[in-house]
Amino acid sequence: MAATEAQSKLAHVLPLGSRIDARGHLEVGGCDTVALAREFGTPAYVYAEDDLRSRARAYVEAMRVRCDAAGHAFDVLFASKAFPCTAAYRLFAAEGIACDVASGGELALALRGGFDPARIYLHGNAKSLAELREALDAGVGHVVLDSFDDVERLERVAAERGTRQAVLIRVTPGVAGRTHASISTGQADSKFGFGMDDARRAIERVRACDHLELQGLHMHIGSQLLSLDAYRPAVEAIATLGDFPVYNLGGGLGIAYTAEQQPPSIEEYVDVQVRAVTELVGSGKRLLIEPGRSLVANACVTLYTVQTVKRNVSTWVGVDGGMSDNLRPMLYGSLYEALLADRADRVGEGERCHVTGKHCESGDVIVHDVPLDDPRPGDVLVTPATGAYGHAMANNYNGIPRPPVIFCKDGDARVVVRRETYDDLAARDVD
Amino acid sequence: MAATEAQSKLAHVLPLGSRIDARGHLEVGGCDTVALAREFGTPAYVYAEDDLRSRARAYVEAMRVRCDAAGHAFDVLFASKAFPCTAAYRLFAAEGIACDVASGGELALALRGGFDPARIYLHGNAKSLAELREALDAGVGHVVLDSFDDVERLERVAAERGTRQAVLIRVTPGVAGRTHASISTGQADSKFGFGMDDARRAIERVRACDHLELQGLHMHIGSQLLSLDAYRPAVEAIATLGDFPVYNLGGGLGIAYTAEQQPPSIEEYVDVQVRAVTELVGSGKRLLIEPGRSLVANACVTLYTVQTVKRNVSTWVGVDGGMSDNLRPMLYGSLYEALLADRADRVGEGERCHVTGKHCESGDVIVHDVPLDDPRPGDVLVTPATGAYGHAMANNYNGIPRPPVIFCKDGDARVVVRRETYDDLAARDVD
Repeated sequence: MAATEAQSKLAHVLPLGSRIDARGHLEVGGCDTVALAREFGTPAYVYAEDDLRSRARAYVEAMRVRCDAAGHAFDVLFASKAFPCTAAYRLFAAEGIACDVASGGELALALRGGFDPARIYLHGNAKSLAELREALDAGVGHVVLDSFDDVERLERVAAERGTRQAVLIRVTPGVAGRTHASISTGQADSKFGFGMDDARRAIERVRACDHLELQGLHMHIGSQLLSLDAYRPAVEAIATLGDFPVYNLGGGLGIAYTAEQQPPSIEEYVDVQVRAVTELVGSGKRLLIEPGRSLVANACVTLYTVQTVKRNVSTWVGVDGGMSDNLRPMLYGSLYEALLADRADRVGEGERCHVTGKHCESGDVIVHDVPLDDPRPGDVLVTPATGAYGHAMANNYNGIPRPPVIFCKDGDARVVVRRETYDDLAARDVD
Repeated sequence: MAATEAQSKLAHVLPLGSRIDARGHLEVGGCDTVALAREFGTPAYVYAEDDLRSRARAYVEAMRVRCDAAGHAFDVLFASKAFPCTAAYRLFAAEGIACDVASGGELALALRGGFDPARIYLHGNAKSLAELREALDAGVGHVVLDSFDDVERLERVAAERGTRQAVLIRVTPGVAGRTHASISTGQADSKFGFGMDDARRAIERVRACDHLELQGLHMHIGSQLLSLDAYRPAVEAIATLGDFPVYNLGGGLGIAYTAEQQPPSIEEYVDVQVRAVTELVGSGKRLLIEPGRSLVANACVTLYTVQTVKRNVSTWVGVDGGMSDNLRPMLYGSLYEALLADRADRVGEGERCHVTGKHCESGDVIVHDVPLDDPRPGDVLVTPATGAYGHAMANNYNGIPRPPVIFCKDGDARVVVRRETYDDLAARDVD
């Protein structure tokens, strides 16, 4: 049976290897999503493990080809804030990539997931003394310095331990990628990093520190960028700061949340970054990139069960999750697709609906104005592209237990994060 | 020493009984906030227990006076979504008020906190079959029906158990309070409740159910309302649906997050509600109200420690929490005040600053453009009015452990929710 236009358009937001079986059910990682909902309950985050691995390999291969040609060494860092769970750290550690963490908590998870501390990079605009101590005690490879306070504190902590800590300096190049204001980070008026003038002072200051070894610069100009235009001007800006062995170019590659979005490919993204450094700074560097969202977002779909269908001015399809498992629609006005798991072959058909969560807010709408084919209570509803910042930002608003994370591969499903229980909700309550 | 104008203006956003001691330190519940930060660490939610009790009593007393005069019975319900922790349920249960819950999880917490199930009201626009069963098995007093699917399912669950369940019908009166769109709930195009025409059909349908006993109507027109204008038109609308023994008028009274905001008093709010029912429906009813935010928000301050002070275009004061403990600025653009715990007497003085969280988003700004008196790393920074939807929506974004909840009374502090640990972050991870 030939795929409809709507099915083809949806394919690029779904995990790699997803298919619609003969009964019209959506399969992810070889598993029938209707059967997964029955076995594990809903809501649930379902990841295709092969998708995660394949994107990590695509980044490594894209870097290898381009960096080899220009005489650069390189590393790909999993920006773990996008999906911080032990199984994800373990998977990417096994794939041989490195890792960035943004707090002591993410550091603890990365170590638990098996990352070699030497290949962990610690970020953070407001690192605590405790976090710096934890990082040095663990033997973290690099700390990315974000402020003069950070410099002074790290020098003190390294001195306490009699060590010399490798560091990068985070620069805000005054170039911002076009994205939601909340996740644009390259502008001069920023809580992040050093502006251009301060960066020059920071470089001098760090070079004067006995216990810090300045290896290079870091920049990150924003997240979910669907255009690559801002990267070259950003590299051009930081190239004026001197010549360093290491350049960490951050992350930011956007992904397709909806069928209409057409982000650049991993290869195009890497090409722009490597070419910019080679042409504007020179060859023989060590280049780092930090993909997060683009490694994990499309690997996952969320499964919900429809609880109510209400028709008033609009048609409201109420499901058993919402802003507790996906905050992005409320935080950034993010758009998503939705389809019914057992009628995936009829995607794009039917009544226009709002898919709403079960939380006590009118804003708790997961997907606006999406066609669904006669939705009914009991239907399993799927939202694709929820693999980044879903589990990461999950919360217990309205006393909703957080969903499990299920990894699927070749038709086998395994729970890598179990569902929260009512008892868990009160686990920290002291009675 | 006479209070400055800034101190006086700030007083009404702080917990009742707060004071500035002779050293200029802010005291909450008789406890020095600087000492609390030292003892319990930061970030931390600090509640004045007497404030919680006093507002509950103010609601009960305001209702008693006005309902007695009009021959109404009444109950005040703690809308527990605003602050669902065992100690809060226990405190309000001990105060003798009733409770509303919006899920099976909140129900479990309310029961754990000692609420008589007969005085619990179950809400929800997308209740699951499991939640309805849990409610009936627990002996929940009232279920508030939100959709035709809800009616059919509850009738089935009650029939399974051979019981007759008391219910209210949630009506969206077509009148919306003026507030943020995400928390406006009275409009006709809504995921909540029954519009006016559907409400008439729902009343007939429920009356025909053998296992449901219709006691009355519920409305809730929005949250954080700083004007009472919309309540009377809403009551006027639902008065056209017939004459019922019970009217649940919802919550919605706004609070002062900033020194400039002047919400109506509890007495004014109750007065408008009771008067509207008495005049538009009649006397001798049972009136219910559901305060959440206005019971708990101003009872609490969050304590942070300043980690960095960065001056570029703006001055950025980076603290050790952020959108993981207070999502409201990012969700609704909410405004807050901020002050330094040990220089509370100098509130309103100093450089204009942005207080930013430690999360990897530019949007993670807790307070914009607030004067702070020479902020330095190590300072304890206080944001008032964080008692509602702070703990409730807390999350682990960027691997940040959730803060403890501390109850203070007469100079004694006790932990009622302990701080999350790094191990807790991985507690559900299956390895």
